[in-house]
Amino acid sequence: MKRRVGQYLIDQISVYGVDQIFGVPGDFNLAFLDDIVSHEQVEWIGNTNELNASYAADGYARIKGLGALVTTFGVGELSAVNGIAGSYAERVPVVAITGAPTTVVEQAKRYVHHSLGEGVFDDYQRMFEPITCGQIYLTADNAAIEIPRIIAKAIRFQRPVHIHLPIDVAMTEIEVKEATVQPMLSQDVSVFTDLIQERLKEAQQPVLIAGHEINSFKLHEELEQFVNQTHIPVAQLSLGKGAFNEENPHYIGIFDGKIAHKDVRDYVNSSDCIINLGAKLTDSATAGFSYEFKTEDVIFINDEDFRVDSTYHTDVSLRDMMRSLLTLNYENTANFTPFNREHMTDFILNDEALTQENYFKMINHFLQQDDVLLAEQGTSFFGAYDLVLYAGNQFIGQPLWGSIGYTLPALLGTQMADKKRRNVLLIGDGSFQLTAQELSTMIRHQLKPIIFLINNDGYTVERLIHGEKEIYNDIQMWDYTALPAVFGGKDHVQTHKASTSNELKTVMDTVDQQPDKMHFIEVTMGMLDAPEKLVNISKAFAAQNK
Amino acid sequence: MKRRVGQYLIDQISVYGVDQIFGVPGDFNLAFLDDIVSHEQVEWIGNTNELNASYAADGYARIKGLGALVTTFGVGELSAVNGIAGSYAERVPVVAITGAPTTVVEQAKRYVHHSLGEGVFDDYQRMFEPITCGQIYLTADNAAIEIPRIIAKAIRFQRPVHIHLPIDVAMTEIEVKEATVQPMLSQDVSVFTDLIQERLKEAQQPVLIAGHEINSFKLHEELEQFVNQTHIPVAQLSLGKGAFNEENPHYIGIFDGKIAHKDVRDYVNSSDCIINLGAKLTDSATAGFSYEFKTEDVIFINDEDFRVDSTYHTDVSLRDMMRSLLTLNYENTANFTPFNREHMTDFILNDEALTQENYFKMINHFLQQDDVLLAEQGTSFFGAYDLVLYAGNQFIGQPLWGSIGYTLPALLGTQMADKKRRNVLLIGDGSFQLTAQELSTMIRHQLKPIIFLINNDGYTVERLIHGEKEIYNDIQMWDYTALPAVFGGKDHVQTHKASTSNELKTVMDTVDQQPDKMHFIEVTMGMLDAPEKLVNISKAFAAQNK
Repeated sequence: MKRRVGQYLIDQISVYGVDQIFGVPGDFNLAFLDDIVSHEQVEWIGNTNELNASYAADGYARIKGLGALVTTFGVGELSAVNGIAGSYAERVPVVAITGAPTTVVEQAKRYVHHSLGEGVFDDYQRMFEPITCGQIYLTADNAAIEIPRIIAKAIRFQRPVHIHLPIDVAMTEIEVKEATVQPMLSQDVSVFTDLIQERLKEAQQPVLIAGHEINSFKLHEELEQFVNQTHIPVAQLSLGKGAFNEENPHYIGIFDGKIAHKDVRDYVNSSDCIINLGAKLTDSATAGFSYEFKTEDVIFINDEDFRVDSTYHTDVSLRDMMRSLLTLNYENTANFTPFNREHMTDFILNDEALTQENYFKMINHFLQQDDVLLAEQGTSFFGAYDLVLYAGNQFIGQPLWGSIGYTLPALLGTQMADKKRRNVLLIGDGSFQLTAQELSTMIRHQLKPIIFLINNDGYTVERLIHGEKEIYNDIQMWDYTALPAVFGGKDHVQTHKASTSNELKTVMDTVDQQPDKMHFIEVTMGMLDAPEKLVNISKAFAAQNK
Repeated sequence: MKRRVGQYLIDQISVYGVDQIFGVPGDFNLAFLDDIVSHEQVEWIGNTNELNASYAADGYARIKGLGALVTTFGVGELSAVNGIAGSYAERVPVVAITGAPTTVVEQAKRYVHHSLGEGVFDDYQRMFEPITCGQIYLTADNAAIEIPRIIAKAIRFQRPVHIHLPIDVAMTEIEVKEATVQPMLSQDVSVFTDLIQERLKEAQQPVLIAGHEINSFKLHEELEQFVNQTHIPVAQLSLGKGAFNEENPHYIGIFDGKIAHKDVRDYVNSSDCIINLGAKLTDSATAGFSYEFKTEDVIFINDEDFRVDSTYHTDVSLRDMMRSLLTLNYENTANFTPFNREHMTDFILNDEALTQENYFKMINHFLQQDDVLLAEQGTSFFGAYDLVLYAGNQFIGQPLWGSIGYTLPALLGTQMADKKRRNVLLIGDGSFQLTAQELSTMIRHQLKPIIFLINNDGYTVERLIHGEKEIYNDIQMWDYTALPAVFGGKDHVQTHKASTSNELKTVMDTVDQQPDKMHFIEVTMGMLDAPEKLVNISKAFAAQNK
């Protein structure tokens, strides 16, 4: 069949379930946007800027399995670089499409706007090399082959790809087959799972640490089946919370090094066989690498990285490993203490200044079965990763990349991906200021998330690391609850303020009663109050910077 | 003397006159920020995000000759990439400093936050290579030599440089000499100016096209002296407006290809010797390369690029060329029509809907002797570049790089650089939404610029190129004048609205009477109304994308 290159690109993205594409218009992508707007399977979602678009596409992809954004050459794509790098680090598949000058302009090396004025056109694509798993310069000749290939690559590695699309190429008609999901090859990895089985049979106290790659590759069911078969207890990293069903009786809790709950910490640290499954032992996930188990006791199973004893392999697929693990013949008999689901529900109600500790307990109580919960890096994330989740929850943070401001535009993406599901965002004032305008896009589309904004007058997470009272950790005080009306949300957004637990309880009750509105709640807390875990992690970060 | 590496870096920046450093805190730069905050010559200006910080540093540098910003590793520096690329394209010297993990963390290849989680630490610096003229990884051993060298490089080439500063290196004491401005070497370029003199002596009708590099290298006085000596008439590109004193009798006007005023167009197109001085004939400056003179009649004098006939040289300094031109023995006798300074002042006053044409005439009348005028790429820039300037004005736009949203944070930089000078910003609603939060930083510092925001309900510049009524060119309607109060400017900012020329005149009179306030004026105009030049340039851009 005949399709324009641009149309075929959209076809091929949409067969993976993508029905919304994010971005910002620019003259080098406008004609391609026509093909998006008129495409039957996808909708165009314009963002207020490109960084926000990249965050939104990332959030969308975390729900739907793939995201896409369109920016213009130079100014647009370079504004999105930080968001794409975050998707790379945390393994989120996003297709970043740049509408570029025509091949004629390029071949003539013309000094066009958005270029560096030196007749060079591949600089920006080069800049995407370290932060994408594939890059392609589309031509009318290669499009039929390269478009399916590059998107399959994003899916295979759960990482972003970059597509440079000259606008004349986008408009060129080519002969293509109907777009389809590309087949995934599978490897026989039994040579590795045999090694794992041997190690397990020697182990006295095996434990599984599940991490973010389980979320990326959506291997939750397989993981739970494996655990139910083998009875190996499971700890999660904060980087990857949601990887394992916290309602499963084999769940023992979050492992975050020396600050973990004693039961979890002792169990993991004294284990003689730690299966690190799709997890990465980063500084923020382990309170500064404060684990005490021996690395030689760890079986590292990551995508593209398998390690046990002296066996290394870097071309192994996590999907295949997970599938192969299900064939293991092993049953754990060691005792362990299951996760205590009650420990976060004992909040108190009074008229005193609200504390962080009480706030997170109230949030936990507020949480419903199928909520998507987003927590911004900072006080919000470090308080939220200890919350007790239901099996149906999805938890989204960015603890490895840690780009402040990420979650507000990410919320646009997650909520767009499923408008019926309740989305709850926990964010702080400092982070909110970086990307605040994307609230306007949520209002534009009449979305109904619930946003809790902590107003504690500055960058509290930085204060705890260094410069408690230094001016560089101060921010300008905003009248936050007046912002939704500025962005056109006077009727659609209900705003609230709370500075005591009694006030917050009243707000939460109101929110529950009015699911047909967006809710924006400003929660005031002390400048130096913080979740205990954050206080401890901050000390580890400060020590690491000496 | 003993100084910490970080202190010495600040010393060396400050000797070039930099007294404010922009940026956003992050745990890998906090200890270095202590040295900024306590430094006697510089002040820390915290931005709401890193892209805005890079724009602010660019604006500051355009006034002061050098700018600097500090971001954190990964998330911070990558958010600033687009702004730094703009400084590179338009030749603005900005020192981009990244506070990075310690050398110990790096050598151990640890999986720290803000890394890609793969133990690699030089990815981001590589990404800066195409968009900076120098990059340095500082160590305690190289700092004493490399710090002065890299900053001198930014000054020599008037382009940004990137400094990777591990936070332990920043804190290390080293032995240094007192920071000084580095000497600039000069070349003997008379071999080239002799060629120019020969060409001029054969010419019947020479003309000079001045461009943005004159602004970058601050060669205004030398250029005017040269013109006064030789009587060669001068046209300016929009990319570089302000390069030549428009009050000088040798000024003939803006040359923008086929859309230039007939007198200028005919004179330049029929010239047999065009001296392209620090100018770049880009698509946006020439209405899509619509000049009619022969390229072989052009003498190209750019920094690092000299061309006349078959003589090329890429290592020539524009400063040296300008200096050498002053020794030419030549006097032009051809007649020319001087610029008509009266053509922009005949605005009309009535109660009808304000038009773009009338708006820019009123803005021109509003302009004062020493104003800094910033015009955002879009309707504002394409209307403003034809304004008649005084010798004392400085005009700031970004027509080559063309990143929308640039001017609002740039205004923070220009106004910070000289708080006493009146700064006037012309911006549109679409652009404003990208970087709106930086208004908050201007309020925080009680700055007093005058901001005219055109509300015409969307991306009008894009509508004119393609997709006049397509949804991708729509934006969410904001209550713009309510925003300053949200950002804490209730008392400091006076807001105004105008939708007729009579209303705008009243507002302008009020603004003139109250110089002790920041003024924020929302001017409503028709969605498809645009300066005539923009209409024509848009057609050229649309044709270029076929």
